[in-house]
Amino acid sequence: MKRLLESSSLRALARGCAVLGAGGGGDTYISLLQALQATENYGPVPLMDLDELPDDDLIMPCGGIGAPTVSIEKVENGDEGARLRHHLEDLTGRRVAALMAGEIGGGNGLIPITWAAQMGLPVVDADGMGRAFPEVNQVTMHLAGISPSPAVMTDERGNLLVLRTVSGNWMERLERAAAVEFGGAASSTEYTLTAGQARGATVRGSVSLGIRIGEAVGRAEGDPVAALIAELGASRLIAGKIADVERRTTSGFAAGSVIIEGLGADSGRLVRLELQNENLVALERGRVLASVPDLITVLDTETADAIGTERIAYGQRVTVIGFACDPIWRTGPGIDLTGPRAFGYDFDYTPVEELAGAKA
Amino acid sequence: MKRLLESSSLRALARGCAVLGAGGGGDTYISLLQALQATENYGPVPLMDLDELPDDDLIMPCGGIGAPTVSIEKVENGDEGARLRHHLEDLTGRRVAALMAGEIGGGNGLIPITWAAQMGLPVVDADGMGRAFPEVNQVTMHLAGISPSPAVMTDERGNLLVLRTVSGNWMERLERAAAVEFGGAASSTEYTLTAGQARGATVRGSVSLGIRIGEAVGRAEGDPVAALIAELGASRLIAGKIADVERRTTSGFAAGSVIIEGLGADSGRLVRLELQNENLVALERGRVLASVPDLITVLDTETADAIGTERIAYGQRVTVIGFACDPIWRTGPGIDLTGPRAFGYDFDYTPVEELAGAKA
Repeated sequence: MKRLLESSSLRALARGCAVLGAGGGGDTYISLLQALQATENYGPVPLMDLDELPDDDLIMPCGGIGAPTVSIEKVENGDEGARLRHHLEDLTGRRVAALMAGEIGGGNGLIPITWAAQMGLPVVDADGMGRAFPEVNQVTMHLAGISPSPAVMTDERGNLLVLRTVSGNWMERLERAAAVEFGGAASSTEYTLTAGQARGATVRGSVSLGIRIGEAVGRAEGDPVAALIAELGASRLIAGKIADVERRTTSGFAAGSVIIEGLGADSGRLVRLELQNENLVALERGRVLASVPDLITVLDTETADAIGTERIAYGQRVTVIGFACDPIWRTGPGIDLTGPRAFGYDFDYTPVEELAGAKA
Repeated sequence: MKRLLESSSLRALARGCAVLGAGGGGDTYISLLQALQATENYGPVPLMDLDELPDDDLIMPCGGIGAPTVSIEKVENGDEGARLRHHLEDLTGRRVAALMAGEIGGGNGLIPITWAAQMGLPVVDADGMGRAFPEVNQVTMHLAGISPSPAVMTDERGNLLVLRTVSGNWMERLERAAAVEFGGAASSTEYTLTAGQARGATVRGSVSLGIRIGEAVGRAEGDPVAALIAELGASRLIAGKIADVERRTTSGFAAGSVIIEGLGADSGRLVRLELQNENLVALERGRVLASVPDLITVLDTETADAIGTERIAYGQRVTVIGFACDPIWRTGPGIDLTGPRAFGYDFDYTPVEELAGAKA
């Protein structure tokens, strides 16, 4: 066991997950409260390295699906995780040995910990993205050829779906349609895999990374944004204030754009973020400053707390940073699945550090 | 066994199902061709009375779900029924003994016969509506307290959903959302029940009724519309031509309205039908001529062939008839589930024969 996820780790992790969310993955405030309460009720959850688990151990990747704008008002009932596990065990005829975040970014990095506490199970130090992405099949398990089926999805009322699809894209379409019908948010598990498979099919160490990011900000003196940038090796894209937000909850996503007007050294600059749950691209006068699959995160300039796409509001003083995604997303198949063209943009991916170098 | 459903019975049944579809239930042309081919390949399907089956025999109600406008162009793959059965047997741990049409109206009255032929199973002489209704939970099994879960849904690509919902209304919402995602049509089974339950929870004899209706039209000499009206005890609402059709495929339904301009004795009259897959109400200058749950069917004036809502077109010479639904739909709970107010109309249900009497 790497460590027990007691409350100080959870608080740091929440901060780190928000940064790794790139604007998405859902609000961490409610998810942190739930994880703290579950830890108080059932004891802290063990964080396990995948190497500590036998090859055959079954891992349930899980979390919320839907629009982050909805999930801050439409909260889980509390029994979703148990229901997902129960049906997944029924379907596979096997016991779930550990939970894993489908995506470490945002509240979705914390939800599996709440459920694991309730179940007395560990969580593994890995996830399927190393960040948050909007679509169900944008996971490393998909690149590794793991089947998304059988997937299980449930809502706070107790409705339950089992899905077996002919592709990851169909899983995304059908789960999204159901999430919309449920009111814009639901809970799900897909891409079930064994520990042996997971060793080569996940982003490893991402829970530890989230805690480390949160701790770096927490112990920063003076300028937490600078501390975070140093920790991540991130590029500062702009510092300024939110001048405009256009956001709609549509087709199960929070979509829209945000304009940041530069202040201080950045005075006179205007940067536009385009978003689909997550911040997808940062543009300045048509020039790309950063794009998926790299992470673009909006930070509160004073506290370095990441601000999710659902909480961005006019007038906030923010610093926008860009930083490198996990190397898996920079491979050919990774870029095909999560690069700019996967979201309909007509330009090729360039790593954020190259873009930042070109500017300098 | 009541009879074997050989080709002449199937041809008569197709005609009868179209009449009982009240405009909906899907086109019977393609479904008849499929049933004839399956009968040729595998032999005719036995039609069983529910009294002939042991109490415990498991019955699979099944058919298509979606918009009839879509189902005439997006045809089944052929293996949907087998897939539904396989998963239903897995879920229940029991063998399916017979198939039943969820709704006898339209192509949905024939689809289970094609599947039963492939499987070597009988179909039962009953259904869940005695007609066609647009929504999944508008079935007699719902009134009898049978659970819609577990339901299974599949498309022609091989995608598969198992649904367990907290209500029939949620089953409708989730299946509809999935049907839309599938392109507007899919195949499904819900409200699985035993033969013992079915005896008191279905409209009995509806396959025989469909055949009888088709045969009455087939042997009519001179005026097949008059023969059909006599067979059904129907009211002739108007004879004329289609003057206008406004139809859109939306939210998984074919919705809209049709204007019939009277000819001959009905010259000067204008009747408006409003539809949601099925013909819901017939109105003349704001007066209701007939409404759900009674059946409103548009017939070709020459042949008495029923014309589904998806094939209605400007200029067709038609006779519109209204006739009584099964008595179950005229009970309080029946009217609550399928009466005018269930479709958003602000008037109470009056039986079509009373409305016709008031006019005379």
